[in-house]
Amino acid sequence: MRILLIGASGTIGNAVREELADRHEFISAGRNGADVSVDITSPESIRAMYQTVGKVDAVVSTTGSTHFGSFLELTPENNEISIQSKLKGQVNLVLLGHHYVNDRGSFTLTSGIIMDDPIVGGTSSAMAGGALKAFVTSAAIEMPRGIRINSVSPNVVKESIKKYGPYFPGFEPVPVSRVALAFRKSVEGGQTGQTYTVY
Amino acid sequence: MRILLIGASGTIGNAVREELADRHEFISAGRNGADVSVDITSPESIRAMYQTVGKVDAVVSTTGSTHFGSFLELTPENNEISIQSKLKGQVNLVLLGHHYVNDRGSFTLTSGIIMDDPIVGGTSSAMAGGALKAFVTSAAIEMPRGIRINSVSPNVVKESIKKYGPYFPGFEPVPVSRVALAFRKSVEGGQTGQTYTVY
Repeated sequence: MRILLIGASGTIGNAVREELADRHEFISAGRNGADVSVDITSPESIRAMYQTVGKVDAVVSTTGSTHFGSFLELTPENNEISIQSKLKGQVNLVLLGHHYVNDRGSFTLTSGIIMDDPIVGGTSSAMAGGALKAFVTSAAIEMPRGIRINSVSPNVVKESIKKYGPYFPGFEPVPVSRVALAFRKSVEGGQTGQTYTVY
Repeated sequence: MRILLIGASGTIGNAVREELADRHEFISAGRNGADVSVDITSPESIRAMYQTVGKVDAVVSTTGSTHFGSFLELTPENNEISIQSKLKGQVNLVLLGHHYVNDRGSFTLTSGIIMDDPIVGGTSSAMAGGALKAFVTSAAIEMPRGIRINSVSPNVVKESIKKYGPYFPGFEPVPVSRVALAFRKSVEGGQTGQTYTVY
């Protein structure tokens, strides 16, 4: 398959590529250092990416910025970071991309455990994750030409524990290789409308 | 209690008021014909509403516009209707309103069944509903001064079946009075972080 991976430089993106690269062709997209440059907060940039890349069999998104911080300091303005990037960025990869996905291809988005199991400071990101889960559930029933859509909801991963561990007290980190398996299930399997929780 | 009801003129808003009015004082807010005028897509308008109303014990939102239509015609632009109104409108009622809610008061938002049980044409609304559910789950653990937050996820209601029935084939409509009970549970009860499904 020809797979477009957005967020290839991140911990999860890297692991997805490792899990799948020996059997598939990858095109990486991201803000820098990728095959194709894209800013997912800009529909124009997403359109340009797809025009450059052309037809693919799978679109995998392991990207999306969010705002972390105390709920009492969450404002319409800083909440917009998660809405523009993690939420609308990933949704728009689908809305603007399905024409570029071959018959029976797939989309796989990334949400996150805190929509189900909240942490202090995570409301904005959790909100975006919940939106993505429902979007995937619903979009699946109308996707054209047998195109599938799923999302992966990862726990905090062992490989990022130094950076994110303090935000996830008592959470049992999972190896990023387990998260990558869920992406493989979505890309190579036949299911649609699922959110694979790797908790 | 002093209850601020946003969306008082709608079918569900009316039923909530009927269920609760004999025991509580209501201030209704909406785009027209209400005690206080508000456009929830504008943070400035929300701020002005709270300044006019002052302290309350409960904020109940039964409002939020969405875009309905074929997934293939869903675009970043028309998806924005649901994001600006149902999603951000209701979220911002909380972010900008908690200072105006008395200790141990509450917020109750409205999502909807299609985030769990999708219908054709409903992806944009489902996405907003999923965001609200996760927002409520997460915000509940950080709400200050014992303030609670829940949401109600109604099925299509019998009283709106002429208007919405064709979009919900095979769904078993619920009387709006059952939906109103869920709002009563949220306002008068002690739970927080819940999404009450009235399916």
